[in-house]
Amino acid sequence: MKILILNGPNLNLLGIREPSIYGKSGLNRLIKDLDKRALALGVEIYHFQSNSEGALIDQIHEAREKYHGIIFNPGAFTHYSYALRDAISAVELPVIEVHISNISARESFRNISVIAPVCLGQISGLGLEGYGLALEYLVKYLSNSTAN
Amino acid sequence: MKILILNGPNLNLLGIREPSIYGKSGLNRLIKDLDKRALALGVEIYHFQSNSEGALIDQIHEAREKYHGIIFNPGAFTHYSYALRDAISAVELPVIEVHISNISARESFRNISVIAPVCLGQISGLGLEGYGLALEYLVKYLSNSTAN
Amino acid sequence: MKILILNGPNLNLLGIREPSIYGKSGLNRLIKDLDKRALALGVEIYHFQSNSEGALIDQIHEAREKYHGIIFNPGAFTHYSYALRDAISAVELPVIEVHISNISARESFRNISVIAPVCLGQISGLGLEGYGLALEYLVKYLSNSTAN
Amino acid sequence: MKILILNGPNLNLLGIREPSIYGKSGLNRLIKDLDKRALALGVEIYHFQSNSEGALIDQIHEAREKYHGIIFNPGAFTHYSYALRDAISAVELPVIEVHISNISARESFRNISVIAPVCLGQISGLGLEGYGLALEYLVKYLSNSTAN
Amino acid sequence: MKILILNGPNLNLLGIREPSIYGKSGLNRLIKDLDKRALALGVEIYHFQSNSEGALIDQIHEAREKYHGIIFNPGAFTHYSYALRDAISAVELPVIEVHISNISARESFRNISVIAPVCLGQISGLGLEGYGLALEYLVKYLSNSTAN
Amino acid sequence: MKILILNGPNLNLLGIREPSIYGKSGLNRLIKDLDKRALALGVEIYHFQSNSEGALIDQIHEAREKYHGIIFNPGAFTHYSYALRDAISAVELPVIEVHISNISARESFRNISVIAPVCLGQISGLGLEGYGLALEYLVKYLSNSTAN
Amino acid sequence: MKILILNGPNLNLLGIREPSIYGKSGLNRLIKDLDKRALALGVEIYHFQSNSEGALIDQIHEAREKYHGIIFNPGAFTHYSYALRDAISAVELPVIEVHISNISARESFRNISVIAPVCLGQISGLGLEGYGLALEYLVKYLSNSTAN
Amino acid sequence: MKILILNGPNLNLLGIREPSIYGKSGLNRLIKDLDKRALALGVEIYHFQSNSEGALIDQIHEAREKYHGIIFNPGAFTHYSYALRDAISAVELPVIEVHISNISARESFRNISVIAPVCLGQISGLGLEGYGLALEYLVKYLSNSTAN
Amino acid sequence: MKILILNGPNLNLLGIREPSIYGKSGLNRLIKDLDKRALALGVEIYHFQSNSEGALIDQIHEAREKYHGIIFNPGAFTHYSYALRDAISAVELPVIEVHISNISARESFRNISVIAPVCLGQISGLGLEGYGLALEYLVKYLSNSTAN
Amino acid sequence: MKILILNGPNLNLLGIREPSIYGKSGLNRLIKDLDKRALALGVEIYHFQSNSEGALIDQIHEAREKYHGIIFNPGAFTHYSYALRDAISAVELPVIEVHISNISARESFRNISVIAPVCLGQISGLGLEGYGLALEYLVKYLSNSTAN
Amino acid sequence: MKILILNGPNLNLLGIREPSIYGKSGLNRLIKDLDKRALALGVEIYHFQSNSEGALIDQIHEAREKYHGIIFNPGAFTHYSYALRDAISAVELPVIEVHISNISARESFRNISVIAPVCLGQISGLGLEGYGLALEYLVKYLSNSTAN
Amino acid sequence: MKILILNGPNLNLLGIREPSIYGKSGLNRLIKDLDKRALALGVEIYHFQSNSEGALIDQIHEAREKYHGIIFNPGAFTHYSYALRDAISAVELPVIEVHISNISARESFRNISVIAPVCLGQISGLGLEGYGLALEYLVKYLSNSTAN
Repeated sequence: MKILILNGPNLNLLGIREPSIYGKSGLNRLIKDLDKRALALGVEIYHFQSNSEGALIDQIHEAREKYHGIIFNPGAFTHYSYALRDAISAVELPVIEVHISNISARESFRNISVIAPVCLGQISGLGLEGYGLALEYLVKYLSNSTAN
Repeated sequence: MKILILNGPNLNLLGIREPSIYGKSGLNRLIKDLDKRALALGVEIYHFQSNSEGALIDQIHEAREKYHGIIFNPGAFTHYSYALRDAISAVELPVIEVHISNISARESFRNISVIAPVCLGQISGLGLEGYGLALEYLVKYLSNSTAN
Repeated sequence: MKILILNGPNLNLLGIREPSIYGKSGLNRLIKDLDKRALALGVEIYHFQSNSEGALIDQIHEAREKYHGIIFNPGAFTHYSYALRDAISAVELPVIEVHISNISARESFRNISVIAPVCLGQISGLGLEGYGLALEYLVKYLSNSTAN
Repeated sequence: MKILILNGPNLNLLGIREPSIYGKSGLNRLIKDLDKRALALGVEIYHFQSNSEGALIDQIHEAREKYHGIIFNPGAFTHYSYALRDAISAVELPVIEVHISNISARESFRNISVIAPVCLGQISGLGLEGYGLALEYLVKYLSNSTAN
Repeated sequence: MKILILNGPNLNLLGIREPSIYGKSGLNRLIKDLDKRALALGVEIYHFQSNSEGALIDQIHEAREKYHGIIFNPGAFTHYSYALRDAISAVELPVIEVHISNISARESFRNISVIAPVCLGQISGLGLEGYGLALEYLVKYLSNSTAN
Repeated sequence: MKILILNGPNLNLLGIREPSIYGKSGLNRLIKDLDKRALALGVEIYHFQSNSEGALIDQIHEAREKYHGIIFNPGAFTHYSYALRDAISAVELPVIEVHISNISARESFRNISVIAPVCLGQISGLGLEGYGLALEYLVKYLSNSTAN
Repeated sequence: MKILILNGPNLNLLGIREPSIYGKSGLNRLIKDLDKRALALGVEIYHFQSNSEGALIDQIHEAREKYHGIIFNPGAFTHYSYALRDAISAVELPVIEVHISNISARESFRNISVIAPVCLGQISGLGLEGYGLALEYLVKYLSNSTAN
Repeated sequence: MKILILNGPNLNLLGIREPSIYGKSGLNRLIKDLDKRALALGVEIYHFQSNSEGALIDQIHEAREKYHGIIFNPGAFTHYSYALRDAISAVELPVIEVHISNISARESFRNISVIAPVCLGQISGLGLEGYGLALEYLVKYLSNSTAN
Repeated sequence: MKILILNGPNLNLLGIREPSIYGKSGLNRLIKDLDKRALALGVEIYHFQSNSEGALIDQIHEAREKYHGIIFNPGAFTHYSYALRDAISAVELPVIEVHISNISARESFRNISVIAPVCLGQISGLGLEGYGLALEYLVKYLSNSTAN
Repeated sequence: MKILILNGPNLNLLGIREPSIYGKSGLNRLIKDLDKRALALGVEIYHFQSNSEGALIDQIHEAREKYHGIIFNPGAFTHYSYALRDAISAVELPVIEVHISNISARESFRNISVIAPVCLGQISGLGLEGYGLALEYLVKYLSNSTAN
Repeated sequence: MKILILNGPNLNLLGIREPSIYGKSGLNRLIKDLDKRALALGVEIYHFQSNSEGALIDQIHEAREKYHGIIFNPGAFTHYSYALRDAISAVELPVIEVHISNISARESFRNISVIAPVCLGQISGLGLEGYGLALEYLVKYLSNSTAN
Repeated sequence: MKILILNGPNLNLLGIREPSIYGKSGLNRLIKDLDKRALALGVEIYHFQSNSEGALIDQIHEAREKYHGIIFNPGAFTHYSYALRDAISAVELPVIEVHISNISARESFRNISVIAPVCLGQISGLGLEGYGLALEYLVKYLSNSTAN
């Protein structure tokens, strides 16, 4: 089972960027933690981060044949990238949207995700742990699908 | 560590109610699964379900002195109960909002939660598994808080 | 054939409350009139009124196994109780929404019903007679359903 | 007692038009059924259908001196014809608005009637039976008015 | 100089229709008064009233070659008939919009005219006298245009 | 009979200000023309112009005991001065709102008058002639009122 | 003279709940202070607090025959409980709405009260003292009413 | 194969009406051009233009049995005629909406078509040529449908 | 202790202006009553009324060094004068907003105060008594502040 | 004559992506069909597809000196890319917007194109054939421009 | 070259008023700094500050013949004074709008300027330095205009 | 001191693109002028222009360690790129937003900047000179910061 961990704009600055909102751990730390967790779950995960909407779309397209599911933090694209939404619809993979901060508790423009309607579900506000929980869920979800 | 599992209106009909949206497992099954998971995590959990906004507020108030955190599926109250929101603000416990279905993918009135802004975070669309992930997170969160 | 006549908040004050809008007949008079009509139609009807959203939801849930249909005047809950709406969706009984006054001709907040979309239909502005017409319709509707 | 049954645009296609929404019975069948019901109630009814807003207004104006009340299904004019609304205000006859389908459960533009505020009331979603119930009510209403 | 006096829906009921809003004088009286006034001003006027949007558009089109200007009370079409607006733009005649009642002081849907933006101007709330003032102005306006 | 001609902000620049919109005649010319017209009608008129909302309110208050009616061009205050609106309500004099340009055909903020709802009526887009027509009407209106 | 002091959801936590907004005095302290003040004013007051909308409606209904007026802090119900609004309309008692904090200075959803339109008036932002001032006013108001 | 070319309000003035927007060719020229094109394509076309919404609805209804498809320029009805929309839904013929001017580049009220959602598609801004392209498409579309 | 009683536009007409809304007592009477009440409370009060936004701002600025608090009825400026709002923020004095009528029960534009967010609180709908209650509160508030 | 065929995000997945909406033919097939059609029309066409907004802007800029016109399917960028809109304004080439599906009949966010206002026109809902029709039109349009 | 420095409401309190937003330097300091800068640039500047909208309008009118340009900080009038906007349009002088604080980063009502559309441009958020930069620009702009 | 001059989409076409709005000078000219100005001010500046949102974000991220401040013209990204906004928040550098044209005086979508709230301030409508003024300000601002 292969899962893509996709991180959108500004997430390369994790740990540096507004630590009171996003915490002090960096992206590398997140990658290491998730790799460990994937190992324990017996799945392969791949990491991709980009600040470019187009590169993220390309990656989602590629995932169609290379991965079984995606864990996606679209960063600020969450609120306006209908192109990313369409990419997810197009590839028909299970996607879980993750937000480190509680997007319902911030500026009003962050309260709506244009991407969530085409995902399986969303986890927000649970910090970096949100990625881990999403991974745990996705593995279980894919196992059940395969089993059927 | 004691955690309250709070279920709002119509969740007593789980398994019966619109199974294409909410799945076929009933509330009892959810309770059993969570009890097992709690046991494994070494925490105590208590269950409360009500169709009455007032009873849910009372329960949240009581939780102030009896529990360390709450996992809350407010059902349709999610979208208009400012009184529940105020109850959560009042007791200052960590609360995680859980929705079985992906509320971003349904009727537009379900896209906004008036309760989420005063919670730690939200999990939606991951089925009954969402409760388990919330529990896992809350235990870790409370352990860290206590440790500090 | 068993039908539940459900009355929401403030309808216990019928006859007393703003008689220029709601008329001078009280709830007891409505009950008697409907009982007579039910007798004539050969169906059993049961009456329940509550000012509590939770109690109304409980009653709708119970109706699932006890009644064949519901005639429901949700009072002011019409305009915001998504929890009542979900209760009706959950039990999958035919429900007819009734309003004594013409809600389209009053304050703008009364122009929209959040409950009507999950009902069979709505009668408004025809005074207490609206209940009787709803009963007449529901009996015919249920007879046809049963006949098929 | 004379009552006008007024049907607006596209209702001439009843039975043919989107039968999953409007049913399989045609306008002629409706006319026959209502004629029978009128006979039983001892009132005279007249039928008029037009796809033209102007013709409907003319008919309402004429009704001022020829009929005691109107049962009106304005079709899609329901949602924008302020001219029809003004016609009803002008003639000061009791009017009951009828919709075959449940307009609260369809596209959002169908949720608001600009005509209902000047009618006695509205019946929607009860199929062709809605006309019959409206007739029953209007006869009772007019009898009471005359009696006083 | 030839001027068309155009009256829209429900204005045939002038004097009968809601006299507290529109006054007690009928359309015939208005026609007589305006005819006298036209005589005094030395201009020819023609009257046309219809409840049909299409007939009013046809009349405006004909006016293109037959009249020098139009005084137009569009009745309720004021608020939604973009087709009438386009007709006025198309014929490029000077048009003055007249309303008997003060449309700014009534229901909010009456506060906006979709037709006024393509007229010379608007007179509202000055009763039947509004037509006379519009006539007076239009004659002066056309005399000046011709003089230049 | 005494009538106040009240001009609001920027109308002192008439003739200079945006002549393509407001014409080339100045305020003095308007005053002279209206004086002549008043003489012909046998009424006394007084002129007041101010760029200050407070001064205009003061003048309206004074008018209560000194004039029988007001012709008022509130300039841009038309669109936000609820204080001027209240002043007119307070003095209970007949007021006619006049606009030189067609305010329905300009920027959207000019489409709504917050003052018109408490006036008798409104004339817009008929240039300086609008004041004269308003005067003519007001004299007739006041004569009728006095006569009754 | 008998007056009901009615407190809505979460006001039982007064003194504990967000003291920076609601102050440090508890509900008991408020009750004692008001009792003293009532004694001084020579009126009887009764206290009722509930987190349940239905219980508050029931209490308002009972007040119809038992009290002469109500001082009501509806808590968060202020912003959506049309059922409470209808209850107040129904009983036709003078009601004064009180808010401890300045609801105009907080989240936008708190800026509008759906209940205030059917009350005599509203006091907000004056802390617990608001109740006392409301009591003082209501006694004076009722004395005047009785005197007439 | 028979196709109806339907033109709505003000299109009879084509060539005369605002030529900077709609071009200088008249309706007759359009008819001739389309007739030639139809001949070349081997299909029969019929022309109908009306300024009356009702007449257009009647024509669409008749088309149900007489034509295989419709090319429709609804003129200003595009933006508010839900009755025309319903007529198209009712007859279940393939309809292509055509606009001579680019309706996205004009006044905001022209940006939305209430009719397009029930058509196959829309061509706008391509001048009279738009009709020809629509014809070309519709013939190909109907040929494919028939072939299957 | 010195307190400024500030009255905005049209309040000079108190007693004359719409007495069904604002009562029959004039501004002088209000001044006398408040003077008596101030005497009893042992504080000095000063009165200022103006119809000019600028004069009210000047007065608020002066108050900065001359008074300890302000009781302010901004009249219609309540709903749009952000300049008055800024003046209050600038001087950092405690201000209580008072309205004679219940502004929540009138036209919708009166439901929102742009000034209240920078005041201590608001009293509305309690007639002239509202000023007295505000005075009583402000004296108590200032005494407490001074005492600390 | 040289024309650029520009395809935006997710159109590389044509034939794979949601075939019920976008059809089963792939982008290669579209390219071949258009190439044939271009050959027949005697014009040169070039193809470019990208998921990156920036790359599309670059391409439009280059087109300024290399092509005579553009046929552009902006995919989901249609609904928010003001940068693409500005690019089209900047290069002043004739552009025709094409959508395979009927964007008026899908989610509401797809109903508005921010790009169409700066294009010649738009074709939507006519499947892949829309590109061919746009090409046919553009060639005719450019021939006429050149001829003049 | 003569330039007017115009300051609106509450700017007389500069240095005192909310120093965390507006800084600690007073208006006098600003005047001195600008005077020095003007001297260096070889232009004459004049200062005017008022809390009265009317006085500011008067000043802008006078500027028409006395100054070559205006630097204007309209304070809170920025957000609602259409009368000031009209004054600027009327005098046809180049005006630069200056705001000390970043109005885009504050309350939402401060995000829109109704005055900016008729100015040359706007500088906001650059503190008192904004005036100096505006002066520098205006001198250069006027020199270029004169030179041509 | 090192400052980044960042130009967004379509600014590479400066001088070519809509010269009536953006002027006739090209980007190279702007670069030369700013280089001279930087030299005079004794600071180093670097130029970067891209039509790609991702490339601009990357550049802002890099700026974090390489520059002391940014002057940024985001072009059309101003109105929707929350990702760019987040990039600026993340790097915590002082940024000044510059627009060549007066964005308040153009299409309504250009009136709001989603980026300005996280910048120091904004200059718009002052042509290319706006960059120079921003540079002047930023140097002064950074010098003061460093000095403290």
